[in-house]
Amino acid sequence: MHALSEYTRESAAQIDFRTSPEQYRHWTIAIDGPIARLIMAVDEDSPHAPGYELKLNSYDIGVDIELYDAVQRLRFEHPEVQAVVITSGIQAMFCAGANIRMLGISSHSHKVNFCKFTNETRNAIEDASLRSGQTYLAALNGTAAGGGYELALATEYLMLIDDGNAAVSLPEVPLLAVLPGTGGLTRLVDKRLVRRDLADVFCTVEEGMKGKRAVQWRLIDETVTRSKFDERVTEKALEFAANSDRPTDEPGIKLERLERSEEENEIRYPFVTVTLDRHGRYATLEIQAPDDDAPATVDEIKKQGVNFWPLAVARALDDALLHLRFNEPTLGMLIIKTSGEGGRIAAYDALLTENREDWLIREILLYLQRTYKRLDVTSRTTFAFVEPGSCFVGMLADLLFAVDRSYMLDGQLDDRPAPTIQLSELSFGALRMSNGLTRLETRFLGDDESVGNAKKLVGQNLDASAAMDAGLITFAPDDIDWEDEIRLLLEERASFSPDALTGMEANLRFAGPETLETKIFGRLSAWQNWIFQRPNAAGESGALKLYGTGKRAKYDRGRV
Amino acid sequence: MHALSEYTRESAAQIDFRTSPEQYRHWTIAIDGPIARLIMAVDEDSPHAPGYELKLNSYDIGVDIELYDAVQRLRFEHPEVQAVVITSGIQAMFCAGANIRMLGISSHSHKVNFCKFTNETRNAIEDASLRSGQTYLAALNGTAAGGGYELALATEYLMLIDDGNAAVSLPEVPLLAVLPGTGGLTRLVDKRLVRRDLADVFCTVEEGMKGKRAVQWRLIDETVTRSKFDERVTEKALEFAANSDRPTDEPGIKLERLERSEEENEIRYPFVTVTLDRHGRYATLEIQAPDDDAPATVDEIKKQGVNFWPLAVARALDDALLHLRFNEPTLGMLIIKTSGEGGRIAAYDALLTENREDWLIREILLYLQRTYKRLDVTSRTTFAFVEPGSCFVGMLADLLFAVDRSYMLDGQLDDRPAPTIQLSELSFGALRMSNGLTRLETRFLGDDESVGNAKKLVGQNLDASAAMDAGLITFAPDDIDWEDEIRLLLEERASFSPDALTGMEANLRFAGPETLETKIFGRLSAWQNWIFQRPNAAGESGALKLYGTGKRAKYDRGRV
Repeated sequence: MHALSEYTRESAAQIDFRTSPEQYRHWTIAIDGPIARLIMAVDEDSPHAPGYELKLNSYDIGVDIELYDAVQRLRFEHPEVQAVVITSGIQAMFCAGANIRMLGISSHSHKVNFCKFTNETRNAIEDASLRSGQTYLAALNGTAAGGGYELALATEYLMLIDDGNAAVSLPEVPLLAVLPGTGGLTRLVDKRLVRRDLADVFCTVEEGMKGKRAVQWRLIDETVTRSKFDERVTEKALEFAANSDRPTDEPGIKLERLERSEEENEIRYPFVTVTLDRHGRYATLEIQAPDDDAPATVDEIKKQGVNFWPLAVARALDDALLHLRFNEPTLGMLIIKTSGEGGRIAAYDALLTENREDWLIREILLYLQRTYKRLDVTSRTTFAFVEPGSCFVGMLADLLFAVDRSYMLDGQLDDRPAPTIQLSELSFGALRMSNGLTRLETRFLGDDESVGNAKKLVGQNLDASAAMDAGLITFAPDDIDWEDEIRLLLEERASFSPDALTGMEANLRFAGPETLETKIFGRLSAWQNWIFQRPNAAGESGALKLYGTGKRAKYDRGRV
Repeated sequence: MHALSEYTRESAAQIDFRTSPEQYRHWTIAIDGPIARLIMAVDEDSPHAPGYELKLNSYDIGVDIELYDAVQRLRFEHPEVQAVVITSGIQAMFCAGANIRMLGISSHSHKVNFCKFTNETRNAIEDASLRSGQTYLAALNGTAAGGGYELALATEYLMLIDDGNAAVSLPEVPLLAVLPGTGGLTRLVDKRLVRRDLADVFCTVEEGMKGKRAVQWRLIDETVTRSKFDERVTEKALEFAANSDRPTDEPGIKLERLERSEEENEIRYPFVTVTLDRHGRYATLEIQAPDDDAPATVDEIKKQGVNFWPLAVARALDDALLHLRFNEPTLGMLIIKTSGEGGRIAAYDALLTENREDWLIREILLYLQRTYKRLDVTSRTTFAFVEPGSCFVGMLADLLFAVDRSYMLDGQLDDRPAPTIQLSELSFGALRMSNGLTRLETRFLGDDESVGNAKKLVGQNLDASAAMDAGLITFAPDDIDWEDEIRLLLEERASFSPDALTGMEANLRFAGPETLETKIFGRLSAWQNWIFQRPNAAGESGALKLYGTGKRAKYDRGRV
């Protein structure tokens, strides 16, 4: 059975996250004025890997990659779209959730990463609704089960067709012995404020709920008869659109296919180069400074499109992180470096800060924020090395506070000047973590004075000693120690248990308040990871394995 | 190797949580005026189960049961104690943490429950410091490693002897491939506000840290030379004592040995009877109303001591929950019932509310709060059944909001009157969940109106229909449906995967804000549970299994 899936093999088929609407097999984007419809009609014969059929609008990583792409394009390519309706293109089924057969034959690692990516897209949908003036609605023209309902929960308004059959449900616990793993439980009680005892009932009723009771319990916002469904959906979408601040008279910018060239141990993007050290078990992501001065105006930025440096960096980093996460599981450390002329970056940052009310600049900043968040939740150790020739300035300096540790050379290694770092305003509000705080607020939790001191340093070139004094870096070895210290660091980290590191990092990275997002990644996902390993779910007689075979799962009755 | 430990067998030796200082093997309580010293000198030849020696002040469940007992007794029996110093009675070692050999041979279930109980005691220590005027300090007269340092982190002030050797450390990740599982990671970044990158460093340095750097990094509060150590500890303890509001001129009340009688399927305590249904896989906890009217004054309460009804209920419930958790793992459901004359309970509640400033009443309320919290984090499905003859009044009514679901009979089943429930002030502030909210605030998250409406109902007898209208119960079947509905409910729940239920309940029970406590039980513990199952820790070649054998663990290098 294991041989059925590509995901179960050590050297799995590489997953490519780049796609475009012309290539979609499962989704259609239909735009009508301020409203876009995202229509899901999964091609059951096009699974991402062999071994299962995508029946009943169920999804796998391939379906989710298209959804992620569509959400991104709607934001960047369609400023005129102010409301997005997610709906189904097949009969009587909105979406049946993640494909169970796929989950049953996937490796633990693929299940975990698949859920994480899907969660990130759900969060991106909420990000669009809350911060981009592009509000998502779910037009449930058929049953929304499991992950299908969880997708709907990521929208701001759920409308269920009243056809006597269509229901919403989370059948994971009774049917599959796992959790609704993409935010469903958290969104029920913390977003939709469903009473916890009612949520408990709902999550154990395999067939789900519909009609008045579903509305009363806050599981959906309204039910609509078949004859009025389309009309009412449009009406409601227009209502949300009316509150949007997105411009209706501007063209979007085209998300051209991301350039990427690959060699055995190197991946090159515009402004980002990834080097793989398989023996040392780490990947180095080197971000390059812009080649040219920052444009003078927002109009020029719009002409540059995806070539605008901050956007190009976000796209490359985003793709690189996903690639490493899914395709290079044994590279347990990500090292962030920068190179090039940092002098120009401050002007880019200033341009972003001054124009953050513009729809496109807002999108770029939010994308950067989402990408940095993806780094935060990536289960790899992250280090930043500040070396001669580096340019940790402004938006790149914020990465120093995203990583688990940063090392900065104190002095020179060769003829080049000693490295410096430089903060910009972007680190003080525009780039927030999923806990709602900036990375500096998290770093200096409960210590406003240090945050205030850091703010006073904006725009100054800080050498290692100044950076240490301000608490902005972890260590500053000098030229005599530098090489040995870095070598020992990498060797030592590579010697630890990958699982223990993942758990440790997930607990140390998110001090301070918790939010819907941190609860999903910290609490819900950790429980789901645990359950994904338990024999009751994933064992040979577990529910996930036996689903569809007609055999009943055998459970160990001990409660842990 | 499995045969070495009692914990690994299906029918493990029963763990008894009742003890007293005369029986202690590992701890001594020494009281001098307002200061108590809790001295740990673990008897290495008295492990709780065969198969390991408790070297270097390492602990197992037996050691932790004594600590829990000591913490309770200091609060109730010693109102005059205003500061508690935890220290070691052996040479050069404060505490080496949980016994690793014990962990290596324990079942997954025992590891998880052991950590949970230990966490609860750590939280009880913080509860005493923050709410009882009995502040804990750690006098680290030797190294505090792993769980030993985590114990110290639960105190409010950490003093480390400066003898050239003593250090604090969390060596779990590098040494054992598990997490510091009893709050350490959370308390580092969220309580002591250690910078996350420094915490990362600290948690990977096997030998830990000492001296100035340990103070600078906020790992400890001060270091003291050997010659000044005792003097400085006393000085600091007196400083904390000076801020206490505990009375110095009152006797405490003696925590007499809890009465408990056991038959095959029944356990009887004063005011609580536990019935076990092994076939149906549930336990019923029936709490009985007081036999007598509430005393008129606080002095009378003090005369009644452990026989004072609310305290007797808390003690019995506490012991019953622990017993069921550790000794009856296959009973997956706990059913809360009440019986007796509810009319008297309101007077007890009023007495508690009016005198909550008194040290003993405060202790009783805090104990009730801790016990209810223990129910909240117990990984069993919890139901409450409101039947004829029940008395869900006041403090017992709050249990209706602690359980996963409540069922209340609408009408009569026999000659007895239809059941009613009644709220008291205690549900609106005195009994908080670990998220900091009352159970009604959690139940009605974001819906202040419903909380307000419930408050207006205080003191009224509410029948099923009124209770449903106010959202205080889940379902109210009538006499025709009652029996079938309850039977089907229990059968259905028993058919689900225990693991999936545990995960689901852990996510639905704690809507709203997160705190140190919810982070420890929700985020940290879930990750630790996951890691406790991973082959890198618990497999035959895992670090936990091989510890002490001289063999090196072999790790799967894939990052998940």
